[in-house]
Amino acid sequence: MTKANKKIVVIGGGTGVFTVLSGLKDYFSDLTAIVTMADDGGSAGILREEFGILPPGDIRRAIIALSASDNKILSELFNYRFNEGSGLSGHSFGNLMITALERITGSFDKAISEASKILAVQGKVLPVTLQKTRLSAEFDDGEIIKGETNIDIPKNDGNRKIKEVWLEPAVKINPAAKKAILEADAVIIGPGDLYTSLIPNLLVKGVKEAIKSSKAKVIYFVNLMTKFGETHGFRASQFVSELEKYIGKGIINFAVVNNTKPAAMRFRPYVLEQSEFVEPDTDNFPKGATPVTASLIRNYGLIRHDPEKLAEVIKMLT
Amino acid sequence: MTKANKKIVVIGGGTGVFTVLSGLKDYFSDLTAIVTMADDGGSAGILREEFGILPPGDIRRAIIALSASDNKILSELFNYRFNEGSGLSGHSFGNLMITALERITGSFDKAISEASKILAVQGKVLPVTLQKTRLSAEFDDGEIIKGETNIDIPKNDGNRKIKEVWLEPAVKINPAAKKAILEADAVIIGPGDLYTSLIPNLLVKGVKEAIKSSKAKVIYFVNLMTKFGETHGFRASQFVSELEKYIGKGIINFAVVNNTKPAAMRFRPYVLEQSEFVEPDTDNFPKGATPVTASLIRNYGLIRHDPEKLAEVIKMLT
Repeated sequence: MTKANKKIVVIGGGTGVFTVLSGLKDYFSDLTAIVTMADDGGSAGILREEFGILPPGDIRRAIIALSASDNKILSELFNYRFNEGSGLSGHSFGNLMITALERITGSFDKAISEASKILAVQGKVLPVTLQKTRLSAEFDDGEIIKGETNIDIPKNDGNRKIKEVWLEPAVKINPAAKKAILEADAVIIGPGDLYTSLIPNLLVKGVKEAIKSSKAKVIYFVNLMTKFGETHGFRASQFVSELEKYIGKGIINFAVVNNTKPAAMRFRPYVLEQSEFVEPDTDNFPKGATPVTASLIRNYGLIRHDPEKLAEVIKMLT
Repeated sequence: MTKANKKIVVIGGGTGVFTVLSGLKDYFSDLTAIVTMADDGGSAGILREEFGILPPGDIRRAIIALSASDNKILSELFNYRFNEGSGLSGHSFGNLMITALERITGSFDKAISEASKILAVQGKVLPVTLQKTRLSAEFDDGEIIKGETNIDIPKNDGNRKIKEVWLEPAVKINPAAKKAILEADAVIIGPGDLYTSLIPNLLVKGVKEAIKSSKAKVIYFVNLMTKFGETHGFRASQFVSELEKYIGKGIINFAVVNNTKPAAMRFRPYVLEQSEFVEPDTDNFPKGATPVTASLIRNYGLIRHDPEKLAEVIKMLT
């Protein structure tokens, strides 16, 4: 298959980046993933704490998504998580590889490009910033919580709303990420956790300015399910409006929403965590953000975006 | 350069295997490294203890020596040792890779062949046995010490002699190692610590039988320096006789000894550890083991074999 030579930039974090990149890599030859550096939990959190490096988790997922290596074991290895061993349990092998490469090469971005070489990545994986920072959030009851993990996993009343998120300290955009955005034909934002995977990218100084200056079409993928403690009770329009608060008015060109509700039994795993289906209330979308509705959910298991369906929409809009 | 197509098997452990393989890889196209599985210290020891896997350290060194990857960072990565991080400090990245691959593939030998693929190994790296075992030693004062590390680093009087070493439990040769020995044109033993890197291979059931049945020339490289607690006071002939006790009389065809003493200042780092120059007393060699003397020491730093000089001798003898 001939691939389209449009320049596509995907901005996000978490599993969403993996999903959209895996869908796109068969159709576009020029892909760049820009991922959040606000992650501070789990294996990445420990490495961040003990080695003082940027968090490698989202980088790892993007590298695996874009790996063109025909060695399947290598991808599996990169994604392997130790679940035994006093000092190793919980660590992802790929995170350890990026950490070791950071020490060997002396910089985080060189480490990423070496890891990308080993995994035969087609495309680029870029941290949104090369500076260390942390996410903070103020809730509508006035409480301030610091740290992405603490915000991600609500410790008390997940029902309250996030009033604002910001980065401490303020950090600047990675010049390579700026260049990619400026040259892009399309900038895809999401899917991903709104406050903890998407917005942390937009909070980095220079990101929204680059998106604004770029001639790229900006396409936002609204989440399929709400997240207790973060986007509880949100309908699609609220996701779009909230993102617009951080990216700027009129910047989002297309807001893509799923319009098909899966069978009731597929919601069972979500009951306990109070995660609910996002209603596609496209009539309430802010001006300028053209609603695009489509059936976007994969046919099995957890309610996730289907990489192929995402790719179809992006092909259509670019 | 055209490489000789002789089948060369190198048996050993520790840094010696690395040295001889790096020397040989430019001259011989068919190289197999067979390495000891009695290592139980350091990173390998922890992984052995906590993951129940065979010790990966010597495998790692052999893989690096035979890597034909043009990605230098990859070899550096494989050999990288973490020196920070509560759970990671002391672990070699290559050992962690072999451990993760063992879990992914379900077996230690598959893990080695996958690691060999990633590092583009030219040749084969084989554990001498696929069964778990430990080295034990009885000293001339009657004390029995268990564990390779405990023997390697003498805890009390390093001046006493080792009477006998054996494996507990007894283990069988890896069938692939047996095949390689039977088909070999030359079997190189050493250089390496006599009791803790070389003899542990010969103690594995089937190894000396395979060497005896093979038409291969058996070439033994005598150590350059004695080791306190292991081969203290040994002259070259004692190394050869001691090895012969374990491999069988008349099996060693050539015993190669260094005949050039380096400048006095190069011995300084060895004073504290009571390590001394091995005298080339070739007149005392056991019958059948033809002495080969040559200048074998590299020109700089610690007193180590020069890979090129080893390769020259092996080319001459095969």
